[in-house]
Amino acid sequence: MTAPDLDQSRPNGSLHPYGEGELFGKGKHLLSVSQFDRPTLVDLFTLADTVAPIAQRQLGRGDRQLATGQTVCSVLDGAVLGSLFFEPSTRTRLSFESAFLRLGGEVTTTTGFTFSSMAKGESIEDTSRVVSGYSDVLVVRHPDEGSVAQFAAASVVPVINAGDGAGEHPSQALLDLYTLEKELGQRGGTVDGSTIAVVGDLRHGRTVHSLLKLLTVYRDVSVRLFAPESLELPDETARHLTSAGHRLTVCDTVVEALRGADAVYTTRVQRERITGEVPASIQGNLIDRSVLAEADALDIVIMHPLPRDSRHDAYDLSSDVDDLPGLAIFHQTDNGVNVRMAIFLTALGCSPEMVRVTTKQRPWDATLHWNR
Amino acid sequence: MTAPDLDQSRPNGSLHPYGEGELFGKGKHLLSVSQFDRPTLVDLFTLADTVAPIAQRQLGRGDRQLATGQTVCSVLDGAVLGSLFFEPSTRTRLSFESAFLRLGGEVTTTTGFTFSSMAKGESIEDTSRVVSGYSDVLVVRHPDEGSVAQFAAASVVPVINAGDGAGEHPSQALLDLYTLEKELGQRGGTVDGSTIAVVGDLRHGRTVHSLLKLLTVYRDVSVRLFAPESLELPDETARHLTSAGHRLTVCDTVVEALRGADAVYTTRVQRERITGEVPASIQGNLIDRSVLAEADALDIVIMHPLPRDSRHDAYDLSSDVDDLPGLAIFHQTDNGVNVRMAIFLTALGCSPEMVRVTTKQRPWDATLHWNR
Amino acid sequence: MTAPDLDQSRPNGSLHPYGEGELFGKGKHLLSVSQFDRPTLVDLFTLADTVAPIAQRQLGRGDRQLATGQTVCSVLDGAVLGSLFFEPSTRTRLSFESAFLRLGGEVTTTTGFTFSSMAKGESIEDTSRVVSGYSDVLVVRHPDEGSVAQFAAASVVPVINAGDGAGEHPSQALLDLYTLEKELGQRGGTVDGSTIAVVGDLRHGRTVHSLLKLLTVYRDVSVRLFAPESLELPDETARHLTSAGHRLTVCDTVVEALRGADAVYTTRVQRERITGEVPASIQGNLIDRSVLAEADALDIVIMHPLPRDSRHDAYDLSSDVDDLPGLAIFHQTDNGVNVRMAIFLTALGCSPEMVRVTTKQRPWDATLHWNR
Repeated sequence: MTAPDLDQSRPNGSLHPYGEGELFGKGKHLLSVSQFDRPTLVDLFTLADTVAPIAQRQLGRGDRQLATGQTVCSVLDGAVLGSLFFEPSTRTRLSFESAFLRLGGEVTTTTGFTFSSMAKGESIEDTSRVVSGYSDVLVVRHPDEGSVAQFAAASVVPVINAGDGAGEHPSQALLDLYTLEKELGQRGGTVDGSTIAVVGDLRHGRTVHSLLKLLTVYRDVSVRLFAPESLELPDETARHLTSAGHRLTVCDTVVEALRGADAVYTTRVQRERITGEVPASIQGNLIDRSVLAEADALDIVIMHPLPRDSRHDAYDLSSDVDDLPGLAIFHQTDNGVNVRMAIFLTALGCSPEMVRVTTKQRPWDATLHWNR
Repeated sequence: MTAPDLDQSRPNGSLHPYGEGELFGKGKHLLSVSQFDRPTLVDLFTLADTVAPIAQRQLGRGDRQLATGQTVCSVLDGAVLGSLFFEPSTRTRLSFESAFLRLGGEVTTTTGFTFSSMAKGESIEDTSRVVSGYSDVLVVRHPDEGSVAQFAAASVVPVINAGDGAGEHPSQALLDLYTLEKELGQRGGTVDGSTIAVVGDLRHGRTVHSLLKLLTVYRDVSVRLFAPESLELPDETARHLTSAGHRLTVCDTVVEALRGADAVYTTRVQRERITGEVPASIQGNLIDRSVLAEADALDIVIMHPLPRDSRHDAYDLSSDVDDLPGLAIFHQTDNGVNVRMAIFLTALGCSPEMVRVTTKQRPWDATLHWNR
Repeated sequence: MTAPDLDQSRPNGSLHPYGEGELFGKGKHLLSVSQFDRPTLVDLFTLADTVAPIAQRQLGRGDRQLATGQTVCSVLDGAVLGSLFFEPSTRTRLSFESAFLRLGGEVTTTTGFTFSSMAKGESIEDTSRVVSGYSDVLVVRHPDEGSVAQFAAASVVPVINAGDGAGEHPSQALLDLYTLEKELGQRGGTVDGSTIAVVGDLRHGRTVHSLLKLLTVYRDVSVRLFAPESLELPDETARHLTSAGHRLTVCDTVVEALRGADAVYTTRVQRERITGEVPASIQGNLIDRSVLAEADALDIVIMHPLPRDSRHDAYDLSSDVDDLPGLAIFHQTDNGVNVRMAIFLTALGCSPEMVRVTTKQRPWDATLHWNR
């Protein structure tokens, strides 16, 4: 085994800060989706497949067969995750923590702005160096763009970015893409060569930007966009996609975007940001059963980063689509667990083989989980 | 093994919602004390007895013998509890979490109203479906009556109700009854045929209502009630008891209620609810040493759901009874751990035999715990 | 094995309350640094050395060699720590929790004033008795001096004081002294016979007082003090030191205090306490590179309890010393983990031999940690 890329000139023994173009791997921070090329992504998703039975307590997907015993793993026996949420994000935190626990590790949790030391003038570097000494890997969420990278630069253990304000949220984009691959794969398709509708607020949605960025490692994707007025995709993100050889079509209606697409990725419009009268263009539902029927897309793969706004007139994905066969929104959250398991295993240098030899069946909860 | 009662027509794979009259068992939610008949209760308490040495780190009760090694169990090795407290209840949360950890499982914790997603308009069903995908069982506390059942209906794993406002708190009633059985049993008695004094605020106390409801599965109990004016037991609860064949006596004084009783269950009067002058009837102590002496009941079994109000004139159970032989209030909280262990084991389908083969002695903490 | 010193006359089975002069050991609370004499300290530090490879995931210190596998331990398998922080102190909490987890134990956490039961008039004794029944050992932090001892008196398991306001914070003093021993030892020195500069706010700093108190178990220490006006060391603490045979020199400048010293212990001045204009005497840096150069002390061992105030003009330890060879401030926080592991092991009666037989190598994270 070789040593990670450590900067020996740094007095506190910090890991080498993440540099542009550095791919994600053993001993690396995960700060941005730009740390993935196609082979890196394939490796991560292979690992995610390996651990899926551990995450989902089941023998397989889609076959509606119930497990006869729980599949549990102890590969991270003795490892400690420091889960540091400087702003609340309960579901992201629980998904990361559950992922780590299901690999046999242990978790310490800090939520809210409770770093009283920071209020006393402590630098983010001092905080990072101290708490990284208590853990084997850190997950950090922070409201300010760039602050997770700053935190990572002083850490002695790998740091996983769980969202830094308007910045990145790489694990979300990874689980979105992983789910897209699985859903299309179950229908005999692939992401390469597919047609994806992306609708909703394309301007502010961090998850949309990261997903589209990550799509550039695929080939021949047709992306069909629809956004209400003034919520269009930024030109820079669009150029990024077209320069990777993908086709980009801007549509006038959501129905037009949906027609012929293999999957739709929906994001909610943050109506709480709108002051004054709500324009008619963002009232009602963004997508519901009737819109899908009109686009002849009742069997389309339906994705959403969640939460979705279920209040009346919220201009989001309606719950009247919940019994359609392509509903994948809860597959996304379920898959988030094994994708994050794969992230931890990669950063900590664990191979699929290590996972296999530390996995066993346990008697409890033998037939409880529905084969989602 | 047979599959649990899953509703295959539900698109998200949710567990079948709890229905009226459905008994608690493997793969079931625990939402109400009405899910118990006598055999179900006997099974649960037998399991609670089996795990008592693990919960209490001791070889036995009452014999004042210290353990020579710690009894630890790994039956839930690899299982993850999602502990979701939408309102704070530290002791209930710690009791549930400790119970799960002592069976070898792992815990993720969420406290307070930190489900930011709900503030963004997410439905309780979406929240439940998402977070239930991160865990193997959920404990849910919520301030609103009925909301835990609503949460459970969309969960893919069993949900244990840890209190839903004015609704139910079944694990409290179960630990109360378990303690009553043990305490009377140590004196050669049984709950069947016993005389129980129930005193204090009988109108608002959720724990009293649940306990009395659960008492209906026993035979020939004499219940002697005393409540200050306007805090009397609701007629419905009273009818429930008498229709089960129990004798109900309403007493004019606490001394009268205590006289001849085998045990007393005390609840505090929530004086903070009273506006204006506090009536003389709820000043001083509700029960203290002199009251017990006057009722010739100094050796009575003394129970209380806790917390008790130890401030002057709080009209609660005085701490001057703490050295009486029948004090069982801390046995209740201690027993809460193994009763909750039994709840988890039942929901997750673990038998006493599974517990036994995964239990062993550990060297640490060999002689530390006082044999309570 | 012998039973701990339990007071059998106490009805609730509480551990014997901590008495003056009672040394720390198996089954004891840790409330004060006064519970240590020289042999007790040597035993604790030997245990801390034993578990250092588990805490720091490395084969050794100073040799800059990376571990080829993770050293993990399961000696506390099945034990549950109750971590109760009535006021926030994230780093102290994480350090204790990480220590317990790295020994194979499990943790329940409570932070903030969330003991709603206390707001309802519950006594600290009732709270303690209840929650101590859920755990095998408790770590308690409380803003009020003396309240942790009060809490401990009603507990049925050992209580570790993690700071009680202006009172004690014994684990901090222990990790400070442990670090001082290690740093001086690496240079061929010992604490006995050393010269230690102690500078900054000597009046309010709880950590300084505890450290100086603990120094009394050593021999022939020269302590050189410097404090800004009105922040001098209390007479009582000074007398304590001199009566133990140590030399105490009060210096007029920080340079004078540093000159000839083997190590410097710095504490921040709590400038937020100062109302009105900040005196010139506490502007700029307390210690920076130029001050050390002037004192001919660029290779001195540099310690600080952290957090340090990195804001401009904060009159604290400047970060321009961070690449000096004697910087030990992060060794202090790193060592905090194994010192706290030793505290838990001592209270729970585990010997170095028990640790050794339950320690093994794990494959994950093989080369990730920099050898700090």
